[in-house]
Amino acid sequence: MLIIGELINCARKSIRERTEKRDAAYIRDVALRQVEAGAHMLDVNGGIPRQEAESLEWLVNVVQDAVDVPLCLDSSDPGALKRALTLCRQPPMINSITEEPERIAALLPLVKESGLKVIALCISESGPATGAEARLATARRLVDLLAAEGVPLASIYVDPCAMPLSAGPEEVVAVLEVIPRIMAEYPGVHTSVGVSNVSFGLPARKLLNQVYLPLLMARGLDAVVVDPCDRQIMMNIIAAEALLGRDEFCMEYLRAFRQGKLEPMRA
Amino acid sequence: MLIIGELINCARKSIRERTEKRDAAYIRDVALRQVEAGAHMLDVNGGIPRQEAESLEWLVNVVQDAVDVPLCLDSSDPGALKRALTLCRQPPMINSITEEPERIAALLPLVKESGLKVIALCISESGPATGAEARLATARRLVDLLAAEGVPLASIYVDPCAMPLSAGPEEVVAVLEVIPRIMAEYPGVHTSVGVSNVSFGLPARKLLNQVYLPLLMARGLDAVVVDPCDRQIMMNIIAAEALLGRDEFCMEYLRAFRQGKLEPMRA
Repeated sequence: MLIIGELINCARKSIRERTEKRDAAYIRDVALRQVEAGAHMLDVNGGIPRQEAESLEWLVNVVQDAVDVPLCLDSSDPGALKRALTLCRQPPMINSITEEPERIAALLPLVKESGLKVIALCISESGPATGAEARLATARRLVDLLAAEGVPLASIYVDPCAMPLSAGPEEVVAVLEVIPRIMAEYPGVHTSVGVSNVSFGLPARKLLNQVYLPLLMARGLDAVVVDPCDRQIMMNIIAAEALLGRDEFCMEYLRAFRQGKLEPMRA
Repeated sequence: MLIIGELINCARKSIRERTEKRDAAYIRDVALRQVEAGAHMLDVNGGIPRQEAESLEWLVNVVQDAVDVPLCLDSSDPGALKRALTLCRQPPMINSITEEPERIAALLPLVKESGLKVIALCISESGPATGAEARLATARRLVDLLAAEGVPLASIYVDPCAMPLSAGPEEVVAVLEVIPRIMAEYPGVHTSVGVSNVSFGLPARKLLNQVYLPLLMARGLDAVVVDPCDRQIMMNIIAAEALLGRDEFCMEYLRAFRQGKLEPMRA
């Protein structure tokens, strides 16, 4: 399971404020805490209006000074992504390519040349795909497009675009339904979801995020953008990996137990 | 999700000792706590060598004096089941019919006449079914047998027979694989698993039980034999039901939140 830490995102108020103030110590600490908690990769989103490229550039440098894991460059601005790419000390993941024409035009050449990993997010010009069939159709077009340019399936992470449960369970169920279908149709392709969206607008959000993950993993999900500092989330991932036969001899599970990582934190 | 409380089982030392002493107050308390925690039905197992029928009979009476939920009569002794059946004030579930000839001979007439619910456990004469195909084949034979006798599919709960993860993940994965196949092949049939077995022989057992449940539910499981007094298990079930679209307008989820049931207990 590829765990991408989600916390360094300027959509979060604390990160936006510290990024605007160029508070490197704060950002470094958030980066370190995520990696210590088990993140394999860190999402970095510098989405501040009119200064996205500068923010992303600053964040990439600060995070790379703190930790050694690869980055997942997250931006709606292809120009900002392109600039940040040149700063990365190891090959990053691109978050994300969609069916929007200007994103394809800007990002496809980058992904094609670089051998980068890329999240293929099921969003078209008219917005996020809804229902299982539209998600599958969008996923097919994106994977076919990337594959035609020589991107290996193993470098593609299809994100079926999770929606809040508060808007109705149909879209949550559609995401669960489409994951095994995408993975069966394109053997070797990965699937990834940003789980935190699902709980938007409902109480006890953390519980929903924590339980959504094993539900997705039971359908085959093998990458996630998540808060790795949520201890129960990480416990659930480790237990689910073992139960799904993805943790040979339960070695990771037993290691985590010995390290005291499988007991809930007490307040 | 049908939640069958597992705690009144003479395989557990405390229950066996209190049953031998005929400590009705203790048993009543265990019954009450399970129902208050959300159990819809209580498993009652009187498995004490050479006195199973008497123990089961005593337990059935004590539990029925304490709570109003139906019972799930759990015994390897068809005679004990038959005797306990006559004491039940509302139609119980039989746990369980298997492919063992003497159980079929003794239990099929009871199930056929009574309109009871029955757990069809994937065990044959040669022992528990292993692998997905053998489980499916055993499930087919059991369901076909029951259906031929007029038992409605909606009264049948196929239990694919969960095995400990410590014996290797193959059987855990096979159970997950077979659940949707059984439910697709026999529309209306239920599936049920006793989850606690899965964690036998591993540390942090509760975590494995807690995470196993959403994994099973993601594949369609709609009944479970479980410790309802494990608060995190119940939280996970409630959240999974909402996320899987089985809780209209998240009404049960929101009710549980208002009742303070969605926060982990603090030590």
